[in-house]
Amino acid sequence: MNLLDSISIVMVETSMSGNIGSAARAMKTMGIKTLVLVNPKEVYSDKAQARAAGALDVIENSTVVNTLEEATAGCHLVMGASARSRNLPWPLLNPRQSAELASAAVSQNPEMKIALVFGRERSGLTNEELALCHHHVHIPSNPDYSSLNIAAAVQVLAYEMRMTQLGDSVVYDWHKDRENPPADQQQMEGLIQHLEQTLIDIGYLDPNKPMLLMHRLRRLFMRAMPDAIEINILRGILKKMEKYSK
Amino acid sequence: MNLLDSISIVMVETSMSGNIGSAARAMKTMGIKTLVLVNPKEVYSDKAQARAAGALDVIENSTVVNTLEEATAGCHLVMGASARSRNLPWPLLNPRQSAELASAAVSQNPEMKIALVFGRERSGLTNEELALCHHHVHIPSNPDYSSLNIAAAVQVLAYEMRMTQLGDSVVYDWHKDRENPPADQQQMEGLIQHLEQTLIDIGYLDPNKPMLLMHRLRRLFMRAMPDAIEINILRGILKKMEKYSK
Repeated sequence: MNLLDSISIVMVETSMSGNIGSAARAMKTMGIKTLVLVNPKEVYSDKAQARAAGALDVIENSTVVNTLEEATAGCHLVMGASARSRNLPWPLLNPRQSAELASAAVSQNPEMKIALVFGRERSGLTNEELALCHHHVHIPSNPDYSSLNIAAAVQVLAYEMRMTQLGDSVVYDWHKDRENPPADQQQMEGLIQHLEQTLIDIGYLDPNKPMLLMHRLRRLFMRAMPDAIEINILRGILKKMEKYSK
Repeated sequence: MNLLDSISIVMVETSMSGNIGSAARAMKTMGIKTLVLVNPKEVYSDKAQARAAGALDVIENSTVVNTLEEATAGCHLVMGASARSRNLPWPLLNPRQSAELASAAVSQNPEMKIALVFGRERSGLTNEELALCHHHVHIPSNPDYSSLNIAAAVQVLAYEMRMTQLGDSVVYDWHKDRENPPADQQQMEGLIQHLEQTLIDIGYLDPNKPMLLMHRLRRLFMRAMPDAIEINILRGILKKMEKYSK
């Protein structure tokens, strides 16, 4: 499944071309290529180019049309970003839910085309435009200040689409990614015993009153899950300490 | 638990004040208030103010310090945004995992202070700065073009923190949000029978060769789960059709 290739970002009557540049950059960083501009005030400008940075190709390959109907004509699933304050409620999704729905649709039918629609900077989408959408998507924002920049909204939705596309492959696992496997228990015990002996030798640990010291240190080193190289480094330090204490 | 109040956004040596403005806006839309600027080139500018829009208070209340050490001195969990290409790998999280970790930490101890650290526009964080972080956070970006704008990166991480804070309350459920409950089965059957009769009366359905027509229509209307008002509207239309057909 390639969800990202199935998605068009549709920007309706964007008035500041800088925002088109930023949106193009946001799209490309998340692997979405198709941009459709509905009746934009201006497409190319120094600002748009500066903000697009290395994503100018997204603007160059964009399509300009006159209406949202034209922009979404070939799309099977149209989802419109919305501030969620209308008289007639429409099926509403958060960005993660919208990605799950899009992903399910494309999994079932790879030919599925999906439009994510973003409205004007100040006034969003009209009621008529929102009625062209199957679902509305609301980014759950601060009720006291809910005004996301349009490119920031594109970034969030594109990010959720990408996260869904990548799935478990981006659930990072330190233990999977680490350079070397953690030391085995024998190596760990070697370290702990070496540490204990050194602490006795340098007079930090009283073997007659051990208290919880070794227990605490063991817990600390167990938690860090050192590998064999790190254990060797620690034992090298202990050897040096012993040498000076003698 | 208030995860969002526990978080500081730390921006290191930001060179363009417009990005500070955009980051402030991104933070405030997601409900994060605390901004710490490490040795910024410029804080206030027309661009910063324009981009901050209604979030200028975030900049006005920000703290300016000289080093990342100062910025994170009172923090218990420091997570640094990273492009994931270094010699010595560090425990790595995606933004969602970072929000889960932050949330778990604050749930356990509400006094926990968390820093999310963002580096320079061109070069990110230095290896020394990354070494001050407990975890690195990587936004899984397009390998062919991975350069997120810094405010866009702030938006994504802040969004994930907010989504985790809000939890199930932002999993929208159309059935929970709808104005009226769906019609009961008796109302639905009334509609289907009325529809069938009308389709026979107007000569669209041949009762001797019904095929799958009613089955398809039933499935369609079941899927839409109309409420009682919608059923009344549909039956009103059917009545009008019958009237004209006679």
